[in-house]
Order: sequence, then C-alpha cells, then structure tokens
Amino acid sequence: MKLYSYYRSSAAYRVRIALALKNIPYDIEAVSLVNNGGEHRTEAYAALNPQRLVPSLEDGGKVFGQSLAMLEYLEEKYPEPPLLPTDALGRARVRSIALLIAADTHPLNNMRVLKYLVNQFGFSEEQKLQWYHHWIRESFGALERMLQSPETGLFCHGDTPTLADCCLVPQVYNAYRFNCDISDFPTIVSIAKRCNQLDAFREAAPEQQQDK
Amino acid sequence: MKLYSYYRSSAAYRVRIALALKNIPYDIEAVSLVNNGGEHRTEAYAALNPQRLVPSLEDGGKVFGQSLAMLEYLEEKYPEPPLLPTDALGRARVRSIALLIAADTHPLNNMRVLKYLVNQFGFSEEQKLQWYHHWIRESFGALERMLQSPETGLFCHGDTPTLADCCLVPQVYNAYRFNCDISDFPTIVSIAKRCNQLDAFREAAPEQQQDK
Repeated sequence: MKLYSYYRSSAAYRVRIALALKNIPYDIEAVSLVNNGGEHRTEAYAALNPQRLVPSLEDGGKVFGQSLAMLEYLEEKYPEPPLLPTDALGRARVRSIALLIAADTHPLNNMRVLKYLVNQFGFSEEQKLQWYHHWIRESFGALERMLQSPETGLFCHGDTPTLADCCLVPQVYNAYRFNCDISDFPTIVSIAKRCNQLDAFREAAPEQQQDK
Repeated sequence: MKLYSYYRSSAAYRVRIALALKNIPYDIEAVSLVNNGGEHRTEAYAALNPQRLVPSLEDGGKVFGQSLAMLEYLEEKYPEPPLLPTDALGRARVRSIALLIAADTHPLNNMRVLKYLVNQFGFSEEQKLQWYHHWIRESFGALERMLQSPETGLFCHGDTPTLADCCLVPQVYNAYRFNCDISDFPTIVSIAKRCNQLDAFREAAPEQQQDK
C-alpha cells in the first residue's frame, strides 16, 4: 500500500492517522504542494488522481483519491481496531461528524480555494484569514453542540477513536496553524488533546513526516 | 423515516434519489431555505441539526445530518438494490466520485457560501457566477477524466446506479440551473441523462417536490 502524501495536507493527515491506528504497513510517496509550482499539478500526478489533489492511495494495482473513501476502504479491508461503531445509527453519527469537517469545512479552506480567492478576486491576507477562520468557527460551533451528547465519550463517539477523530485532529491542527481562536469550543479542544496523546496520532502528525 | 428536505437542496436531492431507488417509504418535512429568512436558521431546526443545513434524516428516534452519511445508512439498512459494488476497490471508486462532488464541489457553491461572498466580500452577481462555474468545471473536468475507465458502464460505475450517480445528477441539475456550460463533459452529460430516464431519479427531482 502506498500513500501519496504531503506532510501538511489535512486530508493526507487523516489517512495517516487511520493507517497508524490500524497498524497497517505502507509506503509514503511525498508529493510537494509547493515545490516546483506544486508536484500535484503535474500531468504524471493527474494520471493517478485527475483532481490533482493529495492524498491518493494505491493498493491492489489501483489508485484512488478522496480521504474519506480511503478511510472507509481501510475500515473494510482492515477491520481491527474498528474506526466505526457497530450500530448503524452510531455509524451515521460518526460519518456525519467526519463529513462536517471533510465536506463542509476543509474544502472551503483548501489551498486551491485560498489561491483562487487571492489570485482571481484580490483577497488580501487579512481577508483570506477572515474567510479561513469563519468556516472553522461556523463548523466548530455546530460540532461543539453535536458533541454535547451522551454518545460522546473520551473521543467524538464513545471511548475509542473513530473516523470522526481522524478528521477532527487535522482540522484542529489547521486552526492552530492559522491562529484561529477555538478556545470557546472546549469539548473539541479536549478531544483533540486526548487524541494527540496516542502514538498513532503523534506519528501521523505533520512534524513527524519525512517530507516536512 | 422522515427526511427534512428542501426541493432545491442538492444534498436533499441525493438522498431522495437513494430513497426512491431503494423504494423506501418515508415522509418529507419541508424546510424552506428562503421563507421567513430560512427555516433552517431557526433554533428549532438547529436543535435537530446544529449545522443548520438541509437535509436531516430522522429514523429510530435519532436525527442526523450530512447526505453521504444518510446514503451509507440507507445502504446498510436497506441493502437492496445495492448502491455500492461488492468489491472494496469498486466501493472506493464509487465513494471517491461521490466525494469529489459532495466534498469538493457542492460545499463551495452552497447557498451559505455564496451569501457570505456577496454580503461580506461584496461579490457582484457576475463574480458569484464566475466562482460557481469555476468549481463545477474544475470538478467535472477531473470527473470526466476519471470516467474514461473500463469500470464506467451505463452509469458512473457499472451498469446500475450507485451512490456516485445519486450525487452526480443533482450537481448536473445545479450546473444547468446556473447556466454553466458542461457540454465539453460528454460522459457526465450522458450518464446524467440516462439516470433521468429512470423513475427514481425523476420522482426525486426538484420539480416533483410538493414544497417547490
């Protein structure tokens, strides 16, 4: 199994966490989003991933994109330890948290979007940050409320990490990186902190990547 | 089962398609995104869906958001007819197409985002449309290329509809609605056309909804 990864890619970070939690051996092929105008922009990479986005996962002779598709694939192929609960409604809750981040937060703040706002619409650095913080705080406000539930445990759902935590931690990392104040979302902050005490989350962190 | 839906909501439209393909009986509770400043903005709706986004799905005494979480839930609870292939890599391909739309296209063009661009950053109608078309054409360019694969059949994956088609058709609908030229993506256009010949896709269309 090979992961096309960039150390700071939030979506690659999610997949690295799941790979580490499940203790799956894999190779990393670094794809720099900044060197040479972005290695993900090359035709060679587009042949693997037509969206020209990182990450891509290669397994069984195929390559596919989209981090949540990868998380589901890993869960199906390596069921232990499970990153989804056993009951259908619990699974729906975990997926809805994961998607709140992976569909409704991160894509708005992706590098390609920020670049488009700057290059096409003349956003200043300040406007870019305003945009960035706005969407994190919108989502985290909703998520903090969702987490006020008896189904929340030590982690987003119950007392073991799930796909929801795999998505939450990179988003919290991004919030800190871009100086977004999230101190008024105490449940989120505390779950992310707890995750980061686990080896799997630590190993997957950007700072631990060889391509940093 | 109850779907909180708005006829023009692209994400609700996806779920209506899956419900119809699986022939699942359900009730619709209409949540207008425009009347009275948006019924999804009320505190009553936020108690069900803290993101204040449509759709929400109610079943087994619980309510959850995120259309892809709903599609997965329906697939688990009502496996027939299947909307995911049986092989793990095929499932990954279908999910990656669904997410290309549901994570990397639609959230950028969601009404709340367009409103924020207009109200906060003074986007003109023309700039709004430029933004809207840009992200559809970016994604459809990548998807058209992904579909040049022996795994594509009459539909996005094989010869029966999958979750990928449930996401594709509402996105194509939106493209037409906002006058985005997609004629240079012939595979996408032709698959969407084929879907729309099926009763399930027709019944789920915005024009067929009671709240239109």
